[in-house]
Amino acid sequence: MKEQTSAPTLIDIRNADKRIGHYAHRTPILTCSGLSERAGAELFFKPENLQRAGAFKFRGACNAVFSLDEKIAQRGVITHSSGNHGGALALAARLRGIPATIVVPTNAPPVKLAAIRSYGAQVVDCQPTVASRESTALDLQRETGATFIHPYDNQRVIAGAGTAALELMSDVPDLDLVMAPVGGGGLLSGTAIASTELSKSVRVIAAEPAGADDAYQSFRSGKLVLQTNPQTIADGLRTSLSPLTFGIIRDRVSDIVRVSEEEIVETMHLVWERMKIVIEPSSAVPVAAILAGRVAKAGSRVGIILSGGNVDLSNLPW
Amino acid sequence: MKEQTSAPTLIDIRNADKRIGHYAHRTPILTCSGLSERAGAELFFKPENLQRAGAFKFRGACNAVFSLDEKIAQRGVITHSSGNHGGALALAARLRGIPATIVVPTNAPPVKLAAIRSYGAQVVDCQPTVASRESTALDLQRETGATFIHPYDNQRVIAGAGTAALELMSDVPDLDLVMAPVGGGGLLSGTAIASTELSKSVRVIAAEPAGADDAYQSFRSGKLVLQTNPQTIADGLRTSLSPLTFGIIRDRVSDIVRVSEEEIVETMHLVWERMKIVIEPSSAVPVAAILAGRVAKAGSRVGIILSGGNVDLSNLPW
Repeated sequence: MKEQTSAPTLIDIRNADKRIGHYAHRTPILTCSGLSERAGAELFFKPENLQRAGAFKFRGACNAVFSLDEKIAQRGVITHSSGNHGGALALAARLRGIPATIVVPTNAPPVKLAAIRSYGAQVVDCQPTVASRESTALDLQRETGATFIHPYDNQRVIAGAGTAALELMSDVPDLDLVMAPVGGGGLLSGTAIASTELSKSVRVIAAEPAGADDAYQSFRSGKLVLQTNPQTIADGLRTSLSPLTFGIIRDRVSDIVRVSEEEIVETMHLVWERMKIVIEPSSAVPVAAILAGRVAKAGSRVGIILSGGNVDLSNLPW
Repeated sequence: MKEQTSAPTLIDIRNADKRIGHYAHRTPILTCSGLSERAGAELFFKPENLQRAGAFKFRGACNAVFSLDEKIAQRGVITHSSGNHGGALALAARLRGIPATIVVPTNAPPVKLAAIRSYGAQVVDCQPTVASRESTALDLQRETGATFIHPYDNQRVIAGAGTAALELMSDVPDLDLVMAPVGGGGLLSGTAIASTELSKSVRVIAAEPAGADDAYQSFRSGKLVLQTNPQTIADGLRTSLSPLTFGIIRDRVSDIVRVSEEEIVETMHLVWERMKIVIEPSSAVPVAAILAGRVAKAGSRVGIILSGGNVDLSNLPW
């Protein structure tokens, strides 16, 4: 699978769409006149919190798992994740009937661990460092021959993530702007490829927590800046871009804007209250950016991808 | 509007559908494999919590408001409500550009009051008794000439409520069963008319809190039993059936089953957690009934109408 280090094309995203169509939800488009009024633009939400396993991550994991040749697939898949990618990969593997191993740091939220286990994956503990995650996964991979599926630095995962924007662009014509949050950059990369290939006029703008702004720093400086000490409630956005996702983002994204922790929590509450959907802090990030007026020339029709809804209901930030 | 004391027909529901189509959301159909597995049936949810003003109530209020002749409409509309109907009527009136007055008992939840006010309606306080609500509304109606729109004892309101089932039956063919909660019976009546007129084989079963089981008692005894002292967290289901809704329910509903308060709260939590949507306790009632195995011969394909999602996020029951 050497080709995975290059960017997916629109054709790869269309193929992903066909491959996962039988398994993934086609999430609806939601609108909310109250939020549109506040934003001064017509907002069209793509609620990937309603996706299977509660996040857009299922699209990429499913595309990666169902792309494997049968013999290779039978040896299983492996990843390291403390969050949504682990659950998504576990579910995709279960649907294909192959084993999944998820390496999880000891400080992972219990609710995410429970989700991974509920899909029948094997959970292996590691220390809460990137080095420990990677070495633990590598050792297990050598032992079992399982295929490693990276959460975002993977062509098939990015192509799968891009299917959300493919559906958004197909369901809502003439968008001026598409927004997504940015963490490792898988969702943003897939979104940017699908959106800019499908429309010559659409712009793609990402939003990022100010307390984990490596993508913003990288985008502004033109050099990949790694995230060292992320300080944000948006647990899906604490990772760094990879060279692959940074390259796609540099080429296709118009801007990256930042929001504060207070804005994230306030917006999360507002979306729950007005739209009646459960979103996690990461999903609130692009909504907060447009409500705060931080997106210059947003245009009149704005699509926003809500990345996921996996939160601990007994520990809400308000 | 004397014809309002008779049951609406399928044609009335189809007319309501056309009348409100421009204003109401066509809510999507949601599925959740985890909940379907638990229920032992394929569940198709119609999430009216995603409807405008956060509940199916907007459909009926909108149909009633836009059915009025222009001269009569200009005098405004009035109702008494401590909940979703008040907000729905206020929004429908704003959309038509006519005044709305909502009589609200002094013990109404502040969050619902704020919603009614946010739609620009005039709020008038009354004592928290049925007698005070009705006399206050009647006095104001005489004064202003506004049209009184009852929350459920109204043909146009019932026809509007039935459009949710019309959409459900159109989007999901071959349902064996359609479920809805029952309070005053407006949603259940509209649902039962639409469902049984559109399919000869579908059955309609309602669910009710055991602590406010007037519909269950009425259905079993064949005589209208009024709700005197409702004890349930499901604040949308504390009202009594009217002769109009009781007649429709007796003729078209196959069964009414009951659930406990504990089952309501547990199911509400489960739906938030697994489906990532904010539902109010009333919406959890039919889901709780089927998960508890209380629906005999549910069949393999079950449609469930989730009535609304207006809850106080700072005061959750878990």
